[in-house]
Amino acid sequence: MRRGSLHGETDLNAVTFISPILEEIKLVEERMRAQADESHPDLRAALEHLLAAGGKRIRPTIGLLIGNMLGAPLEKLVTLGAAVELLHTATLVHDDLIDGSLLRRGMPTLNARWSPPATVLTGDFLFARAAITAAETDHLPLMKLFSETLATIVNGELTQMFTSRGLISRDNYYKRIYAKTASLFEMTSRAAAMVSPVNEAVIETMRDFGFQIGMAFQIVDDILDFNGDQNAVGKPLGSDLLNGLVTLPAIYYAEANPNDPDVLSLPQGGWTNNENMTRLVGNIRASNSSKQAMLEADQHIDRALTILSSMETCAERDALENLTKYIVDRKV
Amino acid sequence: MRRGSLHGETDLNAVTFISPILEEIKLVEERMRAQADESHPDLRAALEHLLAAGGKRIRPTIGLLIGNMLGAPLEKLVTLGAAVELLHTATLVHDDLIDGSLLRRGMPTLNARWSPPATVLTGDFLFARAAITAAETDHLPLMKLFSETLATIVNGELTQMFTSRGLISRDNYYKRIYAKTASLFEMTSRAAAMVSPVNEAVIETMRDFGFQIGMAFQIVDDILDFNGDQNAVGKPLGSDLLNGLVTLPAIYYAEANPNDPDVLSLPQGGWTNNENMTRLVGNIRASNSSKQAMLEADQHIDRALTILSSMETCAERDALENLTKYIVDRKV
Repeated sequence: MRRGSLHGETDLNAVTFISPILEEIKLVEERMRAQADESHPDLRAALEHLLAAGGKRIRPTIGLLIGNMLGAPLEKLVTLGAAVELLHTATLVHDDLIDGSLLRRGMPTLNARWSPPATVLTGDFLFARAAITAAETDHLPLMKLFSETLATIVNGELTQMFTSRGLISRDNYYKRIYAKTASLFEMTSRAAAMVSPVNEAVIETMRDFGFQIGMAFQIVDDILDFNGDQNAVGKPLGSDLLNGLVTLPAIYYAEANPNDPDVLSLPQGGWTNNENMTRLVGNIRASNSSKQAMLEADQHIDRALTILSSMETCAERDALENLTKYIVDRKV
Repeated sequence: MRRGSLHGETDLNAVTFISPILEEIKLVEERMRAQADESHPDLRAALEHLLAAGGKRIRPTIGLLIGNMLGAPLEKLVTLGAAVELLHTATLVHDDLIDGSLLRRGMPTLNARWSPPATVLTGDFLFARAAITAAETDHLPLMKLFSETLATIVNGELTQMFTSRGLISRDNYYKRIYAKTASLFEMTSRAAAMVSPVNEAVIETMRDFGFQIGMAFQIVDDILDFNGDQNAVGKPLGSDLLNGLVTLPAIYYAEANPNDPDVLSLPQGGWTNNENMTRLVGNIRASNSSKQAMLEADQHIDRALTILSSMETCAERDALENLTKYIVDRKV
């Protein structure tokens, strides 16, 4: 289950949703870079490396588009975007350490170049700077939401570590992808509305929008783990299953083939057998499980588009529609 | 340079400062325990383990005594105390992982029992719960101070990792012990005043009080690393120097013996030579360097006592005086 691994390449859909806030995203990047200004040169270099590998900044983009649509002050949205992206980056740094990952988005991870102690502390540094940046919004409910989202993400990772390997469970899967991905999309959308001059109902609607696209985003990530272009994804196909993580395509396959010996072996640690799992990955790829999983992602996207259609027409709404569609159309 | 390693044993001085807030400290402990209520049983067990090894809770004690003295609401002080102690515990968990320490206060560290990934995530979990608890004070400036203190602590650890090994520098030393220890004492004292019905001048005075006892606390820790009872300290004598950390007793020794070959070797990585460092530790122990270092700790304590003498007489002021004296009198 890759997380938030948007590739750096541009494509037409991405351009159509980023262009309205291109200059504003640069402000977010500057704000992120400034975090290490007074720190050790090695730490500055590490942060530069992380920023260079940073993908499309989909989370700050969502915050900026929603906030602009709803009339939030730009300064708050830039601060929020930087805080969210710093938090996201911090969790990725610790994730890569935990998984022993050496590559992310085709770039070496910090983990691949630095010692584990330096990597732990760089993640902690980013947590601290994310918290400071969140505090700079001067918005107490937003800070509460921010720390609760961090707790949700970390709890999800702990649950994954302790109880999720080899487990074939829809309930466990949906909880995991909420904690891992949707919670931060949800928080960003909700927070952008919270700093806008709108009422509680709009805030709740935007929270739901973030939740829907976040769930879709992770489901598509999990589909790409089976069916993506291996070079673009930058990991072996089926890498989740090889790590014992049973994602939605595998769940559909298991439901359709409950007596497949490889499926039956999963809860008993069968996922540690590379040969069997490679066979299972092949069988899942040959099945229509990924198509079924994509239908679920499409349902989330449909709900998100319905929400958008209830908003007044504006350039930001169009961009959010493009972004929403991009989530299911993307190839990496 | 041990940090915050108050031993669990009771002694007379400790009793005299803890007794006024004994029941309130129990509320802080309950608040800390409640953090893992909805988490995985293994995580709850880890938190219980960390709490059982938790020492005297000197930081929450300072917050409670100052806040009670200044008329703060108890609920805010309990929340603050739990937030501070959770943050402190989080940094210790990552510290022990980074140092590869297997014992703290004579108890196995989490690191000794858990995998590095589980240890990283448990630290992250505690950071998240600390941030949530800080947010529960409903006090924006306090939350800002809280995240800035976390950044100071992490920056200090990064500086130590990147630039401090073998370095004989008073400036580096004072900055390190501020970041490592005094910053959190300072924050706790200041925050307790911030949630009290007092003016800026009192807040600043309490900040200074926390700074002074925090600096003294770490200097004494560093002296005990050379001259303490090895069983009580729970680490080999001179362990800081064996890790390349030149603390105040070693700095005094180096100033008095600039041509000692072991001193000269330090900046060139001589601290990696165990035999030479054992000899240097013996020479420092035989010198009066620790006495000189203690005079500096005494100066901080004197300033802290002067601050207290400017406050109105009350039971909490007496207890804070006992606590202040205890910092330099303690043997572990």
